[in-house]
This record gives sequence, structure tokens and C-alpha cells, in this order.
Amino acid sequence: MELWTPEVFYERMRKVGEESYYDKHPFHLLLNEGRLPIEAIRVWIRNRFYYQGNIPVKDAYLLAKSPREVRKIWLHRITDHDGDDAAGKPGGIQAWVRLDLGVSGQAPAGFETKPPAEQLSILQQHETVLNQAVFLPGVRSAVDSYVGFVREARWEMGVASSLTEMFAPDLMVRRLAALEKQYPAIPSWAYDYFRNRPPQARRDCGEAWTILVARCTTPELQREAVAALQFKCEVLWKMQDAILAASPDPGQTPHRP
Amino acid sequence: MELWTPEVFYERMRKVGEESYYDKHPFHLLLNEGRLPIEAIRVWIRNRFYYQGNIPVKDAYLLAKSPREVRKIWLHRITDHDGDDAAGKPGGIQAWVRLDLGVSGQAPAGFETKPPAEQLSILQQHETVLNQAVFLPGVRSAVDSYVGFVREARWEMGVASSLTEMFAPDLMVRRLAALEKQYPAIPSWAYDYFRNRPPQARRDCGEAWTILVARCTTPELQREAVAALQFKCEVLWKMQDAILAASPDPGQTPHRP
Repeated sequence: MELWTPEVFYERMRKVGEESYYDKHPFHLLLNEGRLPIEAIRVWIRNRFYYQGNIPVKDAYLLAKSPREVRKIWLHRITDHDGDDAAGKPGGIQAWVRLDLGVSGQAPAGFETKPPAEQLSILQQHETVLNQAVFLPGVRSAVDSYVGFVREARWEMGVASSLTEMFAPDLMVRRLAALEKQYPAIPSWAYDYFRNRPPQARRDCGEAWTILVARCTTPELQREAVAALQFKCEVLWKMQDAILAASPDPGQTPHRP
Repeated sequence: MELWTPEVFYERMRKVGEESYYDKHPFHLLLNEGRLPIEAIRVWIRNRFYYQGNIPVKDAYLLAKSPREVRKIWLHRITDHDGDDAAGKPGGIQAWVRLDLGVSGQAPAGFETKPPAEQLSILQQHETVLNQAVFLPGVRSAVDSYVGFVREARWEMGVASSLTEMFAPDLMVRRLAALEKQYPAIPSWAYDYFRNRPPQARRDCGEAWTILVARCTTPELQREAVAALQFKCEVLWKMQDAILAASPDPGQTPHRP
């Protein structure tokens, strides 16, 4: 086995995404074509909340296992998702609650014009609802296997598995355009998550790649990193399998806004 | 078994510290009386570095296991120990490196008058030395058992075990006075850790107690929390046993500055 140059290593990682990232999952293809009823969108957003809530958990395991210089780089991810109350900055989890509220059609009228404190209170109530939801078994087991992987594998492989973020910004931009086109009933304020995350994901995957390329200094570690990214792509794919299977009437009739 | 009032619960926790906190360990009694040669101080500071480096590790495990509202409160502990490069704030670990440098007698002449960047570079070099040190087996096993406890026990017990910080400020204040009196050869700039930590420890144990008293809502959880604090006291005691056993001439002759 040979040691790859950074360029070849990067290309191998990119190829995993090209072949296995879940942007090609039937659910997303149907979504882009407007062939999913809004109930399917609701199943997706509701169940994906289990994943969102577990991102800081896996990141905390990564912090626990990595050396101090990596912890310092990685720490902001916890705040990015949990939010920073002192700075008044909502995190990714709260943005997902907002998305679910908008997609559910249960937001009080004029939600987006209410004062921030009132919006926050409504979101907190809605989060209680989400936390009590029964998530699909296939989603739970996929997410739990991801958290378990980061907890048990060497920390470099947790970094490698995070690199699906290399492929996320493109997917999120296309997805947002499809949602806005196909589901005009969903209010625009619901989409903060898809607007906020792409720049964060670009920064995150730059940081992760810099760490990974410096640490994977043997042929074995490089190949293990590629396998870790493959595993993570499969986690996302399996989640989407369970979500598609639970979606009513996927692709049966083109969705009409 | 009855549910304790918060006051009785607090009193039971405080009593654990009164009976079992390591301020009464022979090493500290000898230290206060000036009956330890400086070589013993060096053994202590050098070996305690293993504990300091593992504090953010156990805190990251606690983050991974606790709910989001607790993560938000607990997160600053990682930065308190690791430091915040962007804000130019050294953390507890770097302060301990500084202490070891001062105690070792190996600091370059005029260290404290050098520009901050040069001091930082010297500290980073010294940290490399510390990271390569062989730590005492008794220190390693005590610290590892603490990290393992926080990783495996329910997260509330990780919070309870942190509450040795209730007793730490008093010890640190007395210890600093004893060190300054008994070891005038140690430069004053070495003691930043003992000056910075007491206010942080007071805030931390306030936060931890607020969480614990709200979460330990059964007689069983309250007693488990008391046992967790007892365990943590024993961790600190065992570390000090190993350090005392490795110290040359403890108490043989009063130390003469």
C-alpha cells in the first residue's frame, strides 16, 4: 500500500461523496421534482430532528478523545448547534425547530412579525413537542450508530466522518430552491437553517480536512479515513431510506402546489 | 429512604468534603508546615499535570451525555482549561505549565519580563517536556478512574463528582500562602493558577450545585450524588498518596528556605 499525496487523498474522499452521498437518494430526487406530498416533507423534517439533536453529542465525544489543539478548533461546533444564549445567537438545533414549526403548518398567525422573545417562547414550546416525538426506528439506529462510531473509533475517524460536509452546501442550496418552488405554503422564515448552515459547513470542512491530512500520515490511516466517510454516507442514506418508507404516496402523483 | 430538603442535601455533600477532602492529606499538612523539600513540590506539580490535562476530557464526556441546557452551562469549562487563543486567554492547563516551569527552576532568567509571545513559546516548549513525562502509576490510575466514572456513570453523577470545587478555593488560598512562605525560591509569576482558579471554582460549583439539586429529585439520586462526591474525594486522595510515596524525605527534617 502506498501513501497518497494530499491531492490523491482528497480525490478519494471526494469520490466517496460523488458515489455515495445521499443527494442521490430517491427521496431527494423526488423532492427536487416536486413529487412528494407535504406530508412526506413533514416526516423528513420531524425525524431528522433526532439527527440534529445528536450532532453536538458526537462532537462532544470527539472533543473528549482528541488532543487539546484539536479540541480548540472543534469546540465552536458545539455552540454552532446548541446556540449561544449570552450572545443571543440561536444554534442549528433551534433553527431546525423553526423549520419544523414552519413545515408543520402549526405556527401561530404572524409568527415572523412577533417580538424575538415571543418567537423564542413559541419555538421552545415547539421543541418540547419535537422532543416527545417517536422517531422512526431506522432513523434512530442510523444516528445511534454514528454517535457510537465517533465514541468508539479513533478520533481521526470521527473527523473523517464529519466530512460529508464537503458535499452538504451544494445539496442545501439545491434543496432550498426546490422547497421554495414546490411548497409555497411553507413560509420563508422557516428556512433559516438552510441559509445559515452552508457557510458554516464550508468553514467546518476546511478545518476538518486540515486536521485530517496532517494526521493521516500512513497508508492505513488514509484508507481508514475513506472508509469512515463511506460509513457516514451510509448513515445518511439509511436515515433517508426509513424516512422515504414512512412517507405517504411518494412519487405516486406529481405534487401540485 | 426519605427525600432530603436542599439544605440537608447540601449539608451531606459538605460533610463529605469535611471528612474526606484531601486538604487533610499528610502531603498537604507537611506542605503547610514547610516540611517538604522542594523536590517533593516538584514531584507533586509534575504529576498533577496528568490530572489537569484530563479535566477537559472528563468535561467533554459530561457534555456528550448531558442534555442541551446543561451543555450550555458546562461548555465554558472546556475553554477555562484549554484556553482561548482567539481571545488571547491562557487556560488552566497553560497556567499549570507555567507553575511547573517556575517550580522546576529551569525558567530562563528574566522570564517574566519577556514579551508575551516569547513567554508563550517558552511555555509551549515546556509543555512538550511535561507531555513526555512518565507519570506515577498511582496518579494515572486515579485520574483514569475519574475520567472513566464520568464517561460511564449517569451524567448527574459527573456533576456531583465535580463538586470537590466546593472545597478547592480554601485549599488553594492556604496552599498559596504556604508556598510563598516556605519556598521563596519559587518565583511569584509561577502562581497564576492558584490566583485565577478560586473565583472560577466558586462560580463552577454554584452552577453545578444548581443543576444537581434540580435533577436529584429522588432519595436514591441524592445518595448516589453523595457517593459520587465521596468517590471523587478518594480520587484526589489516592493521587496524593502516590505523590507522597514518590517524594524524597517527606517530613524527615523541617524544610529550611
